[in-house]
Amino acid sequence: MDQVRIGIVGLGSMGTQHGKYLAGGEIRGAIIAAVCDMREERLQWAKQSWGEHIHTFTTLEAMIDSGEVDAVFVATPHYDHPDAAIRSLQKGMHVLIEKPAGVYTKQVRLMNEAAKKSGKVFSIMYNQRTNPLYQKLKELISSGELGEVRRTNWIITNWYRSQSYYDSAGWRATWAGEGGGVLINQDPHQLDLWQWTIGMMPARIRAFCYFGKHRNIEVEDEVTAYVEYPNGATGLFVTTTGEAPGTNRFEIAGDRGKIVIEDDQLTFWRLRVPESEFNRTYTGGFGSPECWKCEIPIHGNHPGHRGITQNFVDAILKGTELIAPGEEGILGLTLSNAMLLSTWTDSWIDLPLDEDLFYEQLQDRIRGSRFTKQAAPDQLLNTEGTH
Amino acid sequence: MDQVRIGIVGLGSMGTQHGKYLAGGEIRGAIIAAVCDMREERLQWAKQSWGEHIHTFTTLEAMIDSGEVDAVFVATPHYDHPDAAIRSLQKGMHVLIEKPAGVYTKQVRLMNEAAKKSGKVFSIMYNQRTNPLYQKLKELISSGELGEVRRTNWIITNWYRSQSYYDSAGWRATWAGEGGGVLINQDPHQLDLWQWTIGMMPARIRAFCYFGKHRNIEVEDEVTAYVEYPNGATGLFVTTTGEAPGTNRFEIAGDRGKIVIEDDQLTFWRLRVPESEFNRTYTGGFGSPECWKCEIPIHGNHPGHRGITQNFVDAILKGTELIAPGEEGILGLTLSNAMLLSTWTDSWIDLPLDEDLFYEQLQDRIRGSRFTKQAAPDQLLNTEGTH
Repeated sequence: MDQVRIGIVGLGSMGTQHGKYLAGGEIRGAIIAAVCDMREERLQWAKQSWGEHIHTFTTLEAMIDSGEVDAVFVATPHYDHPDAAIRSLQKGMHVLIEKPAGVYTKQVRLMNEAAKKSGKVFSIMYNQRTNPLYQKLKELISSGELGEVRRTNWIITNWYRSQSYYDSAGWRATWAGEGGGVLINQDPHQLDLWQWTIGMMPARIRAFCYFGKHRNIEVEDEVTAYVEYPNGATGLFVTTTGEAPGTNRFEIAGDRGKIVIEDDQLTFWRLRVPESEFNRTYTGGFGSPECWKCEIPIHGNHPGHRGITQNFVDAILKGTELIAPGEEGILGLTLSNAMLLSTWTDSWIDLPLDEDLFYEQLQDRIRGSRFTKQAAPDQLLNTEGTH
Repeated sequence: MDQVRIGIVGLGSMGTQHGKYLAGGEIRGAIIAAVCDMREERLQWAKQSWGEHIHTFTTLEAMIDSGEVDAVFVATPHYDHPDAAIRSLQKGMHVLIEKPAGVYTKQVRLMNEAAKKSGKVFSIMYNQRTNPLYQKLKELISSGELGEVRRTNWIITNWYRSQSYYDSAGWRATWAGEGGGVLINQDPHQLDLWQWTIGMMPARIRAFCYFGKHRNIEVEDEVTAYVEYPNGATGLFVTTTGEAPGTNRFEIAGDRGKIVIEDDQLTFWRLRVPESEFNRTYTGGFGSPECWKCEIPIHGNHPGHRGITQNFVDAILKGTELIAPGEEGILGLTLSNAMLLSTWTDSWIDLPLDEDLFYEQLQDRIRGSRFTKQAAPDQLLNTEGTH
């Protein structure tokens, strides 16, 4: 194969964005060959915009079985990511899914098993992993510059959403339509980066979610989560859509100092000797280790979505290592599921998560949801507006 | 009375500091008339340093009964603050106590009752209340500039203390000697300011304390506390003595924007219209309120200890309103006690606190403490080193 023929399922906001740069020839070794959506007008729009040669389908099966695509780009609503991915993988497609990996980990685990069994390339659109800021942070930690991680603290409250945003589509911020609020819609990138940059998942989580606190919605719009890591480190994650102007500040304390990412700047307060060594040898009572404030240069562009899509294509054509393996989508989702479950049970949640318990609790809420999903199979493809 | 004759009980580090500026004539309308300590060498040092006219005593009773003092400045170890204050108030003394108000609120409540009954002036050395930064913050909130408080977040981890600090005195960081760690020794000012600046105590608290995590001590050296306020706002308080270089960043989000105090600078991100109003009237889907970044000028000096002592003296001589009424010492201590109790019981703590339960749990830990207090009454006055 010298060219990957990509078919996009779901021509909502994200699917359309991905189609545009693919149709524009911006990804080496890939073309957009087909699109799939239940809405005829979206399919016609795609043909008119990207060329009459684009094959159009109203069901995923028809697209897969057509022989016109080698890879499927899943840009359906959240709930349908795993199902669409599994069906594609089982028929020999390479798969790139939009975030989040799904809504509950039980289903995502099935997707990961299907991917493993298939041997196909499977990636997830964690485009923030290509952001040089977070790549540098990960590198400073994995190389040992920061020393062992002691504490993490991410305040990510600059996700302002007004009531009019929530009112713009019936599925928004409903248990049946989205399966969650700020955690499932706005935060997937940060939930991924929070564990990816430090290379560590928590051992247990205690979280405090509020549902419809700032807006007339049924899902969470404010969350504070506290975690303990296996090495004894602790962490906090604070998020809301109800605050203006909001904050995006990620602080990580380690044995050799402290890193803060804020305002697109990475600052490293570097200790001249590790704190643990200073503490072991110092005899002066008051006093603390010498510390240098270092502004860390950030090189390179942030290729964003295109970076992940190019990497996915390169992995298919050349065996390039994936930046965001699809199987890793379960990690951020586990954090999100655990935060909700901790609130619902008002207790600690140990990881690995009790996936059945989360699934049952979520179903309870779906049954009471104001949004009623239609049961038709094609509803899979119904993407409205931006998500 | 045109001059307040002050007697200091406890010539440790703090008592000595206060004596110095009093002896130097830096407080209008007050003189240092007497000192009290069980250690003869400290009394001799005071006479030599501040003048032979200084009366010296080895018991608090003797100093009070001497007729040489109008007011007692309590600078004994933490545990003895309430007892020394009560004994002084009951004999008609005005009283200024060092922070913390005590170690457990049950005892501090008795002190507050004694103060009320006495009708004397009673203040606490919350000198950070005279810091123009926090005064400005309080003013911006009480005047309505920030709007209703939605979320508080104080990361106060720049209290680095090495093992050699803890090893410098046997009573340090022990349940019997200090009754706590970072919360009782380092954080009392922040625990006071956290509620004083916003004018609101939490309704309930869920905290996560670690005991001897970073140092070989028996008390807490790392704390993360989550609170809910009566108006629905939430808050976080993160502190440790084990981190270098540490952070001191206080963020408060309100209906009209956000304030951050960091690096001795107060920044107000001011919304042009309140968030709640924007949300009610906006119809554009995505979009957020116009926000101005305002650097707020901070005028005036920070008079520190002298400011509180002068105010205490002015209250006695002229009826000036107290900046830090002694009765308010219970507020910060309640937060500290609740954080420990939440950890010990692994559960939410509703306020008002169950003071008996906290007292019992503390006694359990005192019984197992490595530090054994001597039972002699004069041990009250034994202050060693810096605290």
